[in-house]
Amino acid sequence: MAVQPLSPNIRVPEPTLRRLPWYLAFLKLLKRRGETFVSSTQVAKEINVDSSQVAKDLSLINVSGKTRVGYEIDSLIVVLEHFLGFNAQHKACIFGVGNLGGALVYDTGLKQYGLDIIAGYDVEAGRVGKTMKDVPVYHINQFGEMQQELPATIGIITVPAENAQEVADLAIAHGIKALWNFTPFRIRVPEQIVVKNTSMFAHLAVMYHRMNTTNQ
Amino acid sequence: MAVQPLSPNIRVPEPTLRRLPWYLAFLKLLKRRGETFVSSTQVAKEINVDSSQVAKDLSLINVSGKTRVGYEIDSLIVVLEHFLGFNAQHKACIFGVGNLGGALVYDTGLKQYGLDIIAGYDVEAGRVGKTMKDVPVYHINQFGEMQQELPATIGIITVPAENAQEVADLAIAHGIKALWNFTPFRIRVPEQIVVKNTSMFAHLAVMYHRMNTTNQ
Repeated sequence: MAVQPLSPNIRVPEPTLRRLPWYLAFLKLLKRRGETFVSSTQVAKEINVDSSQVAKDLSLINVSGKTRVGYEIDSLIVVLEHFLGFNAQHKACIFGVGNLGGALVYDTGLKQYGLDIIAGYDVEAGRVGKTMKDVPVYHINQFGEMQQELPATIGIITVPAENAQEVADLAIAHGIKALWNFTPFRIRVPEQIVVKNTSMFAHLAVMYHRMNTTNQ
Repeated sequence: MAVQPLSPNIRVPEPTLRRLPWYLAFLKLLKRRGETFVSSTQVAKEINVDSSQVAKDLSLINVSGKTRVGYEIDSLIVVLEHFLGFNAQHKACIFGVGNLGGALVYDTGLKQYGLDIIAGYDVEAGRVGKTMKDVPVYHINQFGEMQQELPATIGIITVPAENAQEVADLAIAHGIKALWNFTPFRIRVPEQIVVKNTSMFAHLAVMYHRMNTTNQ
């Protein structure tokens, strides 16, 4: 397998992109078990995807396995982490450090996946001026000023749904390029701004619905 | 608009299902603003969906608007919450009450969306035997026994990825019907078990990728 400094700028289809982290998680598991090679069939079986799909997904990021031997686990982990942006450090700030927001600050897992939370913003007197772990929490009114000092490119939105749009507007006005929106509110942004919605509530709705309609 | 006790068992396509919580969030916002009626065009504009799509989605759950007046906000909220299962109480337990798991326990928002977390399970001595908010944390070995006393139907998995499969197997062996999996590991389950994956890391990967490929 050739390991090359792959550009994360290669555009791949979103379904592929969503499968790659699954492959990565499985590869890391194999690595911890002391394995050194893996076949696409093995990955496919574990992930519940077609094995030709696995090979195709990996070929899209210029990785091909060797006949009989398969993929070398160590190098494939390196290539995937690089391609997925997990070993870069993306500076992020978080709007709303309540329950969910606070948890994300404390979640050390995110840093391992390339998300470096450098500041929190809130409006509650009990939160502003404190630090959570080593992350300082400022009043939302200080955001513009702080962005000049210590700029973040990603904004995580964990405020109440009714404040999501105004926070998004403020974030974009001060240089945020991507918003990770945890509210159920659909924020509107200019075309060049990236939005990723992670709506826990929509996921709950899908889960409840499947529970109601499975095996009836 | 006719408000009828709609069955949450009507099967609707998943894209519709994912849009319904967005509509609900917007309707609640309008309600707080004192509005009483809304048109599908208004919803469509706000949510960034086609207005015929909004009408179609709502017709799938047997809701139709009145000419000129549109939808009555209060009743539409009731219908949506009922259909989405947000006003039922689904008993859930949580495996792994570390950073993310702990945050979900403290997240009061989830209860408002029908998720009632009744117990936590962990293996760390510092966590077992304590309560978080009013949720007791037990050792994972007590799970089978506790399920008899106070059964949960939903299991939330926030353990490290390498333990996800064994926890899923244990959960299913003791009556869990649906798993909400926050690990990047693709757990395998029998056909009748519902799995909803919320992989934060996959969402991060998608976001980073879009940042790298937007406007180039």
